[in-house]
Amino acid sequence: MNGLNLTLLTDLYEMTMMQGYKQAHVKNHEVVFDLFYRTNPCNSGFAIVAGLEQAIDYIKNLSFSEEDLDYLRSLNLFSEDFINELRAFRFTGDIYAIPEGTVVFPKEPLLRVKAPIFEAQFIETALLNIINHQSLIATKAARVCWAAEGDSVLEFGLRRAQGPDAGIYGARAAMIGGCTGTSNVLAGKMFDVPVKGTHAHSWVMSFPDELTAFREYAKAFPDNCILLVDTYDTLKSGVPNAIQVFKELKENNIKPKVMGIRLDSGDLAYLSKEARKMLDNAGFPEAIISASSDLDEYLIADLKRQGAKITMWGVGTRLITSKDCPAFGGVYKLAAERNDEGVLVPKIKLSENPDKVTNPGVKKIIRVYEKATGKIKADLIALEEEVFDETKPLKLFDPVNTWKQMKLKPGTFTLRELLVPVFINGECVYESPSVMEIREYCKQDLATLWDESKRLTNPHIIPVDLSKKLYDLKKQMIDAIRDSNIEE
Amino acid sequence: MNGLNLTLLTDLYEMTMMQGYKQAHVKNHEVVFDLFYRTNPCNSGFAIVAGLEQAIDYIKNLSFSEEDLDYLRSLNLFSEDFINELRAFRFTGDIYAIPEGTVVFPKEPLLRVKAPIFEAQFIETALLNIINHQSLIATKAARVCWAAEGDSVLEFGLRRAQGPDAGIYGARAAMIGGCTGTSNVLAGKMFDVPVKGTHAHSWVMSFPDELTAFREYAKAFPDNCILLVDTYDTLKSGVPNAIQVFKELKENNIKPKVMGIRLDSGDLAYLSKEARKMLDNAGFPEAIISASSDLDEYLIADLKRQGAKITMWGVGTRLITSKDCPAFGGVYKLAAERNDEGVLVPKIKLSENPDKVTNPGVKKIIRVYEKATGKIKADLIALEEEVFDETKPLKLFDPVNTWKQMKLKPGTFTLRELLVPVFINGECVYESPSVMEIREYCKQDLATLWDESKRLTNPHIIPVDLSKKLYDLKKQMIDAIRDSNIEE
Repeated sequence: MNGLNLTLLTDLYEMTMMQGYKQAHVKNHEVVFDLFYRTNPCNSGFAIVAGLEQAIDYIKNLSFSEEDLDYLRSLNLFSEDFINELRAFRFTGDIYAIPEGTVVFPKEPLLRVKAPIFEAQFIETALLNIINHQSLIATKAARVCWAAEGDSVLEFGLRRAQGPDAGIYGARAAMIGGCTGTSNVLAGKMFDVPVKGTHAHSWVMSFPDELTAFREYAKAFPDNCILLVDTYDTLKSGVPNAIQVFKELKENNIKPKVMGIRLDSGDLAYLSKEARKMLDNAGFPEAIISASSDLDEYLIADLKRQGAKITMWGVGTRLITSKDCPAFGGVYKLAAERNDEGVLVPKIKLSENPDKVTNPGVKKIIRVYEKATGKIKADLIALEEEVFDETKPLKLFDPVNTWKQMKLKPGTFTLRELLVPVFINGECVYESPSVMEIREYCKQDLATLWDESKRLTNPHIIPVDLSKKLYDLKKQMIDAIRDSNIEE
Repeated sequence: MNGLNLTLLTDLYEMTMMQGYKQAHVKNHEVVFDLFYRTNPCNSGFAIVAGLEQAIDYIKNLSFSEEDLDYLRSLNLFSEDFINELRAFRFTGDIYAIPEGTVVFPKEPLLRVKAPIFEAQFIETALLNIINHQSLIATKAARVCWAAEGDSVLEFGLRRAQGPDAGIYGARAAMIGGCTGTSNVLAGKMFDVPVKGTHAHSWVMSFPDELTAFREYAKAFPDNCILLVDTYDTLKSGVPNAIQVFKELKENNIKPKVMGIRLDSGDLAYLSKEARKMLDNAGFPEAIISASSDLDEYLIADLKRQGAKITMWGVGTRLITSKDCPAFGGVYKLAAERNDEGVLVPKIKLSENPDKVTNPGVKKIIRVYEKATGKIKADLIALEEEVFDETKPLKLFDPVNTWKQMKLKPGTFTLRELLVPVFINGECVYESPSVMEIREYCKQDLATLWDESKRLTNPHIIPVDLSKKLYDLKKQMIDAIRDSNIEE
């Protein structure tokens, strides 16, 4: 996002609609859009929201160049009047957002945009692109790191990422979700996060034999000596040669800060256990065993169950593409529109699929924590003007199965509002923390989620309820539209 | 790739290896690397290679800034000597590549890099990133367009792409694979490809009612009037309102160039057939029915089989992420290295998995066409110095099941070499065609592939054979390494 100006990174229909709003004389009507998603990726019990810093950069840098305008003119779709208006285009509205690294659930507005429809419509596509991508990878990383049970997880996916940005911002999101480092040097530079890596098979192949290759590597990097042992034969050649080199280092009184091996093929459970024995027997209990090779949260959990002696995991393709679920289904829906009398009127989108009916109005999200444990009890989507008070009883009910209710006594719960102001009247009022700070915050936020909700399959689902007021509004609007719009 | 300099877009281990090669005094050893893949994505019978233009830009723009060097220095991994050397780094070698838009098969070198190991190693990660991503999406697009049987397929995935580049270069690759347009305005500008789109649900919702929304849209864009009809109820509200607006246009003697509806939810087979009847009965047989909604090649083929009356397909998430297979498994393997005597010695990588053993030596690819049909009979991977002649009989055999053989008589086949020179001694000698030219070439190249190999599931696999000389070399090298490297 540094570099290439992304102002034209939008779907054409956003711009045809803009011209349409202008011609219909409604372009300055203030509207509220919610950016939310409907289903957690990978059957997860939660998601981690990410990408806000890049979304902010995008909004700040919105500006049509003369070249952009010439291009738009060449499409023979837009009036000169409209194109001229774009010359001064900037975002003048308000954006509230859930901070990056926060645990989030379906239906919650991750961003809430209030602006003239001319602006709010335009920014839809790029906001979705940025937030969808990074939230997807941050969520996947959180799952992988959870499976690794505190072991170091390194992001190694750049070569299989869906283009340069997917590698760069995917690495950023993976760090937010809990990775301890990335192989991506550019991401390391841009986000000030640890970069990791030693050598590849080609290093070994480019020397006359494996032992020479290992010796040369240890000579070049005596401090950080992780040797890849599977080029020829892991247990018969790789590990013995690595041990030989570690002995030679020892004889020369060289003590690497990090020393060990990397497995990149074969059965990682078996090979790691055998390699561990060989290293221990040779007097190198401090030698690390790291592994890479089509890893994901399921395989890591399985290998752990089988007693694999791996303590550092390099995760590539399946993390950087979120292979089993490569899209985060964020959408951007109209929630309210100011009418000619200046009143912000709630808006709703119906659907054949009841789960796709939107929540109308200007909303906020209240997270309800169990006071005794600090864990998340439920989230409550409410109208912005509603006031909730920790000193009063709180009644929650499921918006689909309304008989599912819980009543919380004062003193047993605490409340937190998730949306924070990011832009007010077009001015950015939010300063993004560093990636390592967001990573630390995410770790703390994940600690408020029950392990039952982090389970890789069939997790416990945290309730996301509607306030009574929002529930009633929604129900009434559905009935009204059904009555007015369809004549049987 | 315009904008942000991608020189640091690499895995850290490429750079630690570079410093290692330097310290081991082998950094100027000339090597040959092959970029190839092992399995077609999506169980396809073929792939479409793409991304060469961006790979060329990357190579041309390689240059470490002082800021990059300061960053590398800060890692405390690299010697000052090494960092100084990077200041003048550029690519000085040769690259041969298969032109973008070509039908390719597993194991074939898509790019062949010959350069000092110091350079050839460095460019691995970025080349893989670029070629893997665009080849994945071009292949997916070719499958989707094949399923659409000549209907227009529009790329609508930007909001679900894995970051901005995935949207931009994914759109480029989708066009190469056969799409007729993209919703992505920036991609339209950068690659001079058609951009498409009309309006969203939010347009409809922002007006008091659907009919008003449609009227306003038709007023703003009388020439290109595709109305989205599923905001409230497709058949009871959307289509009747669209017909009403088409009638009003007719009454006012306005004849749109493109007129029709878009379905975006519900059962597309049923709804399109009903909508077709309603439009025809109202006197609008020219009105197009387009559809979008979680489409991919399988659903399009199914809807076609069920007689859906859709002739324009907007394909989003499942195309731009290649959802069922979101990574193209390209790898970059050492194939040869010049020894101290100046001889280019073939190199091989073994693996427990026989399919992962690499093909050694400097290779070329010969495509064998059946003369009578112009269709692809087989591909032949051979050593660069081998000569094949259409006037002599050609014997082919399967490199795994060697009893599978075919002998072609002169006059029954034609030959074509797939790899073309792109960089010679660091100078670019290749001019990339425009995206629309590549798209046209791809269409022609796909016509040389049998329909049996385009089948979505269980396609006929085109043989990719090794020349006798390459086969013998490989066999001999496997035996030699097994003997020398492993002592039982």
